[in-house]
Amino acid sequence: MATINDIAARLGVSKSTVSKGLNGATDVSDEMKRKILETAVELGYTNKRLLKKEQKICIFIENMDFENSNQFGYDIVLGFKQMAELEGWTVDIIPVTPQFQRETPYGVFMIQQGYHASFVLGFSLLDPWMQEFRTVRIPTVLYDNYVKSNPHIASVGCDSQEGFELAVKHLMQLGHKKIGLISGPLDSYILRARYHAYLNALEKYGLEINENYIGLGYYVAESTRTYIPKLLEQGVTAILFSHDVRAISALTECDDRDIRVPKDISIIGFDDLPMTAYTVPPLTTIRQDRIALGKCGYYAMSCLLNRIPIGSILLRAPLIVRESTGPAPESDRE
Amino acid sequence: MATINDIAARLGVSKSTVSKGLNGATDVSDEMKRKILETAVELGYTNKRLLKKEQKICIFIENMDFENSNQFGYDIVLGFKQMAELEGWTVDIIPVTPQFQRETPYGVFMIQQGYHASFVLGFSLLDPWMQEFRTVRIPTVLYDNYVKSNPHIASVGCDSQEGFELAVKHLMQLGHKKIGLISGPLDSYILRARYHAYLNALEKYGLEINENYIGLGYYVAESTRTYIPKLLEQGVTAILFSHDVRAISALTECDDRDIRVPKDISIIGFDDLPMTAYTVPPLTTIRQDRIALGKCGYYAMSCLLNRIPIGSILLRAPLIVRESTGPAPESDRE
Repeated sequence: MATINDIAARLGVSKSTVSKGLNGATDVSDEMKRKILETAVELGYTNKRLLKKEQKICIFIENMDFENSNQFGYDIVLGFKQMAELEGWTVDIIPVTPQFQRETPYGVFMIQQGYHASFVLGFSLLDPWMQEFRTVRIPTVLYDNYVKSNPHIASVGCDSQEGFELAVKHLMQLGHKKIGLISGPLDSYILRARYHAYLNALEKYGLEINENYIGLGYYVAESTRTYIPKLLEQGVTAILFSHDVRAISALTECDDRDIRVPKDISIIGFDDLPMTAYTVPPLTTIRQDRIALGKCGYYAMSCLLNRIPIGSILLRAPLIVRESTGPAPESDRE
Repeated sequence: MATINDIAARLGVSKSTVSKGLNGATDVSDEMKRKILETAVELGYTNKRLLKKEQKICIFIENMDFENSNQFGYDIVLGFKQMAELEGWTVDIIPVTPQFQRETPYGVFMIQQGYHASFVLGFSLLDPWMQEFRTVRIPTVLYDNYVKSNPHIASVGCDSQEGFELAVKHLMQLGHKKIGLISGPLDSYILRARYHAYLNALEKYGLEINENYIGLGYYVAESTRTYIPKLLEQGVTAILFSHDVRAISALTECDDRDIRVPKDISIIGFDDLPMTAYTVPPLTTIRQDRIALGKCGYYAMSCLLNRIPIGSILLRAPLIVRESTGPAPESDRE
């Protein structure tokens, strides 16, 4: 671990300048403060006095609602806090934007605020801090994201491969042969992982892989509206969705077009949001146990704080069979 | 959780017969005892009184030396015990054989002995208990093995894919194009995983995949002796090994044949056994942090005991560059 001496030596300034810079004193220029902080991050400096004074960690959250119990992030945050607070940590929740990330480097923010570690929710591959995570030396746990080879970063998530294999197996047993995928765009780590999981699952069960069975689009309702008829035209009899929200919008779309679920088409979501038990028909989906995800986030952080170089934790992704899946129509609609 | 009542109802016998059977009383026939225990396992019965009395868990170990500090299993057991004993568990170490497994079902053994959970080291895919792990409801953590979809089973290991990608990248930067693999046979989960990791890493970096660059064999010295000359004839200039033991035997074999390492051939092991720093030349290898693996084994077990349905934990697998890898010979030896 680097000390104030190391930073001073690197920059050719005095120890007291470094100390002042780190503590935001007004008689050090902003330019020098920036240099001091950036060097501190680069060298892996930790402010032991500040860290000792405040036993705090934080959750960075973006693109994810978490304030109400029916929202996706709520239980993840809850599970994490249940574990962390039990062990004496104060947990701050910090919503962030790409602009905030561009203005404040991750390492600088963590040193200035005295956080020991962070749990990062909802980032896409385009978020500016994702670059910084490749080299940062602060214990950081990413949900549904992955950074290679950095021993200070761990990932937690559900096993998309396991989930999609269970889903495809279930559909095969119901006689389906042409299985489609409707997903968000591949600009996030997890959507890429699910896309490959879909392809692998089809390959594993010897089913046809056909790019015309796949619909990728940013806007939920719009892409559902576009792709449901396209996939049906191709003879697809069952569709996997990257998220429950998309699957639920498909139920509405099918209802509007008098397409019967599951008689004409079977639909499987991903997440098991609370409302999926109450849709018409109730949705077959792959469960993400969000309380457990939050707890695992804390387990992974404990490992990193104890210098156990964990890379990833994957939770089981069980298939919850409800009523949106049924036997394949007698013959393909070609 | 099933109770004695449930077992009695299933078998159509009295509660007291079940209770006697579970406690090994002499006035219940061996046949009935067996039925009672098997039903207990099937229904997921746990003997709360026994479990409460004895806070104990166990490590099953096979095909792995662990008694001396230079052996592979030693640090895994140590890391596990460091964490478990801190939290008040008694940890028993139980060497097992396939025959023992055939005679005593896993679930029956665990109920009879009053173990809460187990950590399983060194099993191959052919071990009889591997079948039972698919459905058992006792928290069980497997090292370097994997069982699908059972929420009571978790896996821990190092990330072979990450390790082999780092190794292949390192060799590419040294100018190698034809990279071989020498490995044990594919009858274990982890050797299959490494085999696929090797293929994926070559594919990722656009290198030639050729079955003549691969040598699989059970006996270490014999397969090294057979495959080193075969691979050299094919123009291979660098070889990845599934384990350090095989890589070390290759160093000896090369010395015997006046093949210079790394001038004629580069060699990379897997494990980072203590002795690899002292071989001639010191071995470049992929590290398995065995203390951390043991600690992770306990973390995974904690998760399962707290009903967090963890599927797998993968540790980082950093490349430790020593002197058995060097620039590729000027031209391929075709």
